[in-house]
Amino acid sequence: MTTIPTHGKVAVFSAGSWGTAFSMVLADAGNEVVLWARRPEVAEAINEQRENPDYLPGIELPPTVSATHDVEKALHGADVVVLATPSQSLRENLTTWAPHVEPGAVFVSLMKGVELGTLDRMSEVIGQVTGAGPDRIAVVSGPNLAKEIARREPAASVVACEDEDVARMLQRRCHTAAFRPYTSVDVLGCELGGAYKNVVALSVGMAVGLGFGDNTTASLITRGLAETARLAMKLGANPLTLMGLAGLGDLVATCSSPLSRNRTFGERLGQGMSTEEIYASTRQVAEGAKSCSSLLALAERTGVDAPIAEHVDAVVAGRMTAQQMMESFIARDTKAETD
Amino acid sequence: MTTIPTHGKVAVFSAGSWGTAFSMVLADAGNEVVLWARRPEVAEAINEQRENPDYLPGIELPPTVSATHDVEKALHGADVVVLATPSQSLRENLTTWAPHVEPGAVFVSLMKGVELGTLDRMSEVIGQVTGAGPDRIAVVSGPNLAKEIARREPAASVVACEDEDVARMLQRRCHTAAFRPYTSVDVLGCELGGAYKNVVALSVGMAVGLGFGDNTTASLITRGLAETARLAMKLGANPLTLMGLAGLGDLVATCSSPLSRNRTFGERLGQGMSTEEIYASTRQVAEGAKSCSSLLALAERTGVDAPIAEHVDAVVAGRMTAQQMMESFIARDTKAETD
Repeated sequence: MTTIPTHGKVAVFSAGSWGTAFSMVLADAGNEVVLWARRPEVAEAINEQRENPDYLPGIELPPTVSATHDVEKALHGADVVVLATPSQSLRENLTTWAPHVEPGAVFVSLMKGVELGTLDRMSEVIGQVTGAGPDRIAVVSGPNLAKEIARREPAASVVACEDEDVARMLQRRCHTAAFRPYTSVDVLGCELGGAYKNVVALSVGMAVGLGFGDNTTASLITRGLAETARLAMKLGANPLTLMGLAGLGDLVATCSSPLSRNRTFGERLGQGMSTEEIYASTRQVAEGAKSCSSLLALAERTGVDAPIAEHVDAVVAGRMTAQQMMESFIARDTKAETD
Repeated sequence: MTTIPTHGKVAVFSAGSWGTAFSMVLADAGNEVVLWARRPEVAEAINEQRENPDYLPGIELPPTVSATHDVEKALHGADVVVLATPSQSLRENLTTWAPHVEPGAVFVSLMKGVELGTLDRMSEVIGQVTGAGPDRIAVVSGPNLAKEIARREPAASVVACEDEDVARMLQRRCHTAAFRPYTSVDVLGCELGGAYKNVVALSVGMAVGLGFGDNTTASLITRGLAETARLAMKLGANPLTLMGLAGLGDLVATCSSPLSRNRTFGERLGQGMSTEEIYASTRQVAEGAKSCSSLLALAERTGVDAPIAEHVDAVVAGRMTAQQMMESFIARDTKAETD
């Protein structure tokens, strides 16, 4: 059985906005946190200025958060390894990091995507690359906009691990006055909820960019959650997970917030920019623009109808305009709601 | 069996914002609509200016919408009677209107409340007052902010009647290019979803008024829908209704929109105003401020835990501040999410 102590050292990869904000939670909960930064100058800036100037400027980091560009140094003595890299580069990155991970360390994924090609979820990639069993792989997911977490506004989240004892231990490792983690054993449901919400947020952003109001966006959120639940349940998730913080909660926070990258990306598509033009104008990654095609492929492989993923994928790939997407949704036949 | 033709005359009581906006939908769908106004001068203004200056100023009404202050004239020849009055005055009003209703006419409730004292839903009040059976009582509910509907922005909704054929007939009576009604037989689920969302919107408004962000409001929405579903399912509703447009959809639209009266009412409570002060400053009714106590009583009678209704009721009644409500939510023990 995997056991981890109440407090200890946590390595966080890497220093994006959510990785940095979650480092603050971990430090507030009593851990020593080492944040790995891809660029040495970012690690240096964090250590010297006590803030992450690129992603969370103006927010002071707790003294127990330090940064490094050295993988070995980051992982040495860490019994918990938090992964918060772009989903599509996890496999490659983790392959180089894995040899330095302490034996028995528990992996916590903050990532919300599905790998292109393999259609693997992040927990599956972690298991394949590191050989860790399900009792050493967890997910944290919920309505957790990084900037609000960094400001220590109250938020709830879900810590999921197939081994409930491990979920409870991790819960203690990240429980603070402002951050309330609930435990779950439904890793699959949390991961699919997290990945799909980015795709739904893209569709909501498109509607906003086209000038539609709250009735339309609420309908997209509703239909989007139903689509997520259909796929997740078919793959074995607990429907209550999708109704909960890592499903509905995360979806609503992302779709409501002007801070959300995926919603913002969608807004730009709605305003008529192409995916290439948006990429050229921003550094931040919109996970949904990558994983819409994996989720669509997963839905097709599973035999589940996924109109939102299908339409979003077509708009992102430039095969359809956002306007045409909305017209196509509006033109669908009316019927009984639960058909 | 109740039958109603594809088109005909519809009487709408009364000329508030949603009653007026839904009259436009009905007119666009090919009906002749007579809108009853409580005050003769409002009926006159509508007929002369072709707009409802009090509730939807600047929006031109279709030529097939006319207004009257005369109950008999409104109801004469109407095979559909739409009810959109404040929930707490329905019984008294309908008692005076009922003798003039055409035999066999179908009632459609747009109301979202639960009667104080009796704890009856609006469809139950309609049945008791008019003697109509379930095949003559329907509900329309969904993410339908009146001002957006009046601007003919695309929206979806649910038309529920225990008699599915009647639901389908009503669906045809209100289906337009912009308004997409789905049918349902779950009147109970739609009504509880509609009533409860006002209470949740009050709590969300309070959080906004206190300065909390999207993580907090998304958590309240998630917990609020779970609370709604617990009560509704215990009373016999279909859980899918709560996951759908009349549950989640309506909840998200109301909680997202600065146009929502209940959210606005909550914001003012969050800013420290008392219920009396808010009533003194606005003419519009916030249904949730009335029905939170009925819903709480219904939950207690049903043996269901209802922390949001309980706290909102305490704040509305002045027994607790909004700040204390939020502190109480944040202080609750963490546990497994689905406990």
